[in-house]
Amino acid sequence: MNEKFITFEGGEGAGKTSVIQQLSQILQDENVDFITTREPGGIKISESIRHIILDTNNKEMDGRTEALLYAAARRQHLVERVIPALELGKIVLCDRFLDSSLVYQGIARRLGLEEVYAINSFAIENSLPKLTFYFDIEPEKGLARIAQNKEREINRLDQENLEFHYKVREGYLKLLEMFPERIIKINADRPLEEVVDETKEKLFSYLNIK
Amino acid sequence: MNEKFITFEGGEGAGKTSVIQQLSQILQDENVDFITTREPGGIKISESIRHIILDTNNKEMDGRTEALLYAAARRQHLVERVIPALELGKIVLCDRFLDSSLVYQGIARRLGLEEVYAINSFAIENSLPKLTFYFDIEPEKGLARIAQNKEREINRLDQENLEFHYKVREGYLKLLEMFPERIIKINADRPLEEVVDETKEKLFSYLNIK
Repeated sequence: MNEKFITFEGGEGAGKTSVIQQLSQILQDENVDFITTREPGGIKISESIRHIILDTNNKEMDGRTEALLYAAARRQHLVERVIPALELGKIVLCDRFLDSSLVYQGIARRLGLEEVYAINSFAIENSLPKLTFYFDIEPEKGLARIAQNKEREINRLDQENLEFHYKVREGYLKLLEMFPERIIKINADRPLEEVVDETKEKLFSYLNIK
Repeated sequence: MNEKFITFEGGEGAGKTSVIQQLSQILQDENVDFITTREPGGIKISESIRHIILDTNNKEMDGRTEALLYAAARRQHLVERVIPALELGKIVLCDRFLDSSLVYQGIARRLGLEEVYAINSFAIENSLPKLTFYFDIEPEKGLARIAQNKEREINRLDQENLEFHYKVREGYLKLLEMFPERIIKINADRPLEEVVDETKEKLFSYLNIK
């Protein structure tokens, strides 16, 4: 069932959300049965949890508290949104999932990859994605894109310093080495159309479309 | 440092909160340096998390989401309240802790003792209590006490059926077998003064008071 569960990962400003939007249009034109989602995704309980995580007033938040909250929000979104769609045979394109926690909490915040994996295994059970696109870009370039995008509100995570974002990138590159059969790296330091084209080609190949 | 970390456990209506109140008065009279606490304990982040858990509108909440939320609230309360007090050399009397999750989520909700222990190990790290009082009473009798106590608001957990509360008791008795060196069972089906007397005697003996 997880064959159709596909996730999109990357640092801040890598453009994965824009890529997913473009892919959605393409998949619609192909009459593919799919959904796009991202945590908390309108799931009431997950939204409430995410509100606590991103509240800029919660500066006392311990890194382990944050990791457990992400895992909790992930669980509820998985149960209420992802699994029901997969059970209906739909393709699920999910903007960030397990790897974001492994990288942000496990590596960048130094909680430990194995330990963060343990709580996420509890949250996910058997629902691992079968394919993950990682959009790679240098942190300065990604952050510059965000700064230009005035529509997007700055949250607590954006406020991290540059060193943190470098650790995030190192983290993703480490996961790429660990899970080469699941994760595909896409060079995101290109015009959006090129990024979309490569992702679409690899996605269609995986899904046996055309 | 955890030598002075003492927890109080039991099913609904076992009277542990009343016992802690009485013990507090006694410890004050003895000029013992202590605090009493219970999750979420006024810790802002933990209070926000607990609000999500106990919201009677959140009927869709998955058992694993709930267990992760309890672990998150526990972590923040531990970091902001328990550890600072222990570091100051204070005795910490905590109303419910790890064992409540092992019993309520791990056993009664059948998520698995080991799995719930894993996420709580992440939350607690090395801060295990050294002494735990378990107040034992038959579920019917405990629930009858709650029904009489009109001041106490009924929350989502109280609404569970009787079978659930029997599983909770079985769970505690199982933990008692697993951790006989840490957990002391107190018969809570007696007048409050008797329960307080026995608990006080055992607490004072452990703390080498008098």
